[in-house]
Amino acid sequence: MLYIIGLGLSDEKDITVKGLEAVKRCERVYLESYTSILMIPKEKLEAFYGREVITATRETVELESDDILRDADKVDVAFLVVGDPLGATTHSDLILRASDLNIPTTVIHNASILTALGATGLQMYNFGQTISLPFYTETWTPESWYDRLEENLQVGMHTLVLVDIKVREQSEENMARGRLIYEPPRFMSPHTAFKQILLTETSRNPPTGTTSSSEVTEDETSTAPRSTTLLPPDQTLALSLSRIGTSTQRIIAGTLSELAALPEEEFGPPLHSVVIVGKRLHPLELEFAGRWCVGGENGAWWKVGKDVYGVEKESR
Amino acid sequence: MLYIIGLGLSDEKDITVKGLEAVKRCERVYLESYTSILMIPKEKLEAFYGREVITATRETVELESDDILRDADKVDVAFLVVGDPLGATTHSDLILRASDLNIPTTVIHNASILTALGATGLQMYNFGQTISLPFYTETWTPESWYDRLEENLQVGMHTLVLVDIKVREQSEENMARGRLIYEPPRFMSPHTAFKQILLTETSRNPPTGTTSSSEVTEDETSTAPRSTTLLPPDQTLALSLSRIGTSTQRIIAGTLSELAALPEEEFGPPLHSVVIVGKRLHPLELEFAGRWCVGGENGAWWKVGKDVYGVEKESR
Repeated sequence: MLYIIGLGLSDEKDITVKGLEAVKRCERVYLESYTSILMIPKEKLEAFYGREVITATRETVELESDDILRDADKVDVAFLVVGDPLGATTHSDLILRASDLNIPTTVIHNASILTALGATGLQMYNFGQTISLPFYTETWTPESWYDRLEENLQVGMHTLVLVDIKVREQSEENMARGRLIYEPPRFMSPHTAFKQILLTETSRNPPTGTTSSSEVTEDETSTAPRSTTLLPPDQTLALSLSRIGTSTQRIIAGTLSELAALPEEEFGPPLHSVVIVGKRLHPLELEFAGRWCVGGENGAWWKVGKDVYGVEKESR
Repeated sequence: MLYIIGLGLSDEKDITVKGLEAVKRCERVYLESYTSILMIPKEKLEAFYGREVITATRETVELESDDILRDADKVDVAFLVVGDPLGATTHSDLILRASDLNIPTTVIHNASILTALGATGLQMYNFGQTISLPFYTETWTPESWYDRLEENLQVGMHTLVLVDIKVREQSEENMARGRLIYEPPRFMSPHTAFKQILLTETSRNPPTGTTSSSEVTEDETSTAPRSTTLLPPDQTLALSLSRIGTSTQRIIAGTLSELAALPEEEFGPPLHSVVIVGKRLHPLELEFAGRWCVGGENGAWWKVGKDVYGVEKESR
């Protein structure tokens, strides 16, 4: 049996009782470590499970799936994934390969940022498609996320923005020389995310009287600048979500311009994600998330909520 | 401390290790039992926790939150929720009340149908807003879900349809007499869900040459019938999801008309939900879910996938 087991959001104790029992039964235990990362050392997992944990990198999973699946029709093998194993990124391919080899699979689900974002008070129901924001470089500012965000905003939906994580990145030199030496992992902060979002907003909707910056390269179908602004920085509500589901969880609410102006340190260590608030905002959502807004009771959060979103805190 | 703890999808062992440790520390343990239902008896939970479990009904949570929160600033109290505690339905109000009373809260997340639906092979990323389908009656066929589904389909997104659950329903007579006697719980089957979806599709887009049925009552803003069909029954792909995350999990894929034609027994016991497939379908999604399609390798699934969705199974 191949067990595909979610580890949840934070530490070794976020595994389910059922998942832990399965891991302890398994002959080999792999930890998928390229789509997300657990914020505790692998040794802590090994001590908790009483099992050696083998790190599965992208190369292992894609090229060496035969190793992972070896004898899994006879012995139990565990493949551990941070979050829900089929949540943010499916491991469909591994399951299909197992299926081709007549190896039975069992998925043991767990929490994922996609539902844990309910911690903000925003209703999961009201979220549209999830988008991913890659690290921009001087020459590469991919903007396809913007079109998807627009689709959500046009129907009033909230949007979860998953921010980039770079693990096992090679420097150009190491790659050229074929050296499997990797750079330290990089995690996009909400600070960078909000800056990038506003950069693209300006590039798509340049202020009147200017023309679209020719420095901004788009790698995808270019969209002509619009006359209306999608994300007016002072009139768009957003949230940063840091270390959700951990004891140091931190949520900050505010306008896009307020959040982009906060220093990077304000958000603390990874992992982070970001939410753009849609117009179908409910008073209870405004109130719940407003407890963490920049400026507190006098924050722009409440004024923009009322004037732009048409929502006010209700008396209870 | 008020602990709000997700129980996951299936049985007593789907709680996380962290959640279980918290429950065992708590002086009082409440089980929320009106937004979802665990498919095991409460006594099994009590035996596993070594704690009495108090059923919290809607009345308890809304009207007697003071009872739940009593002394929670001094002792530990657990509020258990099936799925992720803040996933499908937030318990924001209880948290806000605790916050007003300066009672600290800790949320322990868990799996939810909103991420576990990855078991279908469809990418969570490609889902739009979630919709809820209520039980229709002879005089009440609320259709607001249809407009939200349309918003998703227009941008190619998949849609999770949460189907109705009726717990603690009172008969009209018992309600009139003020007797707190409740009907047995009712769970909508995919059979009923697909029938209702097609009923509304016909009412919104009557076949050419007929007029909109006047028997169908709408309780919300009526939309004029369109000339194009949103959900052509033979050209729309869909899935039924039954008992996801349990050992008897069953997924069936097919066209809307194929799925609506299946007998109710085919889907087995609750809990169920339904997915309508959007046009932004990926070949791997088609292949993964196609393993459970009506008609197998010769099923309409593959032909509609190719002709209508423009997607074919890739060779691996």
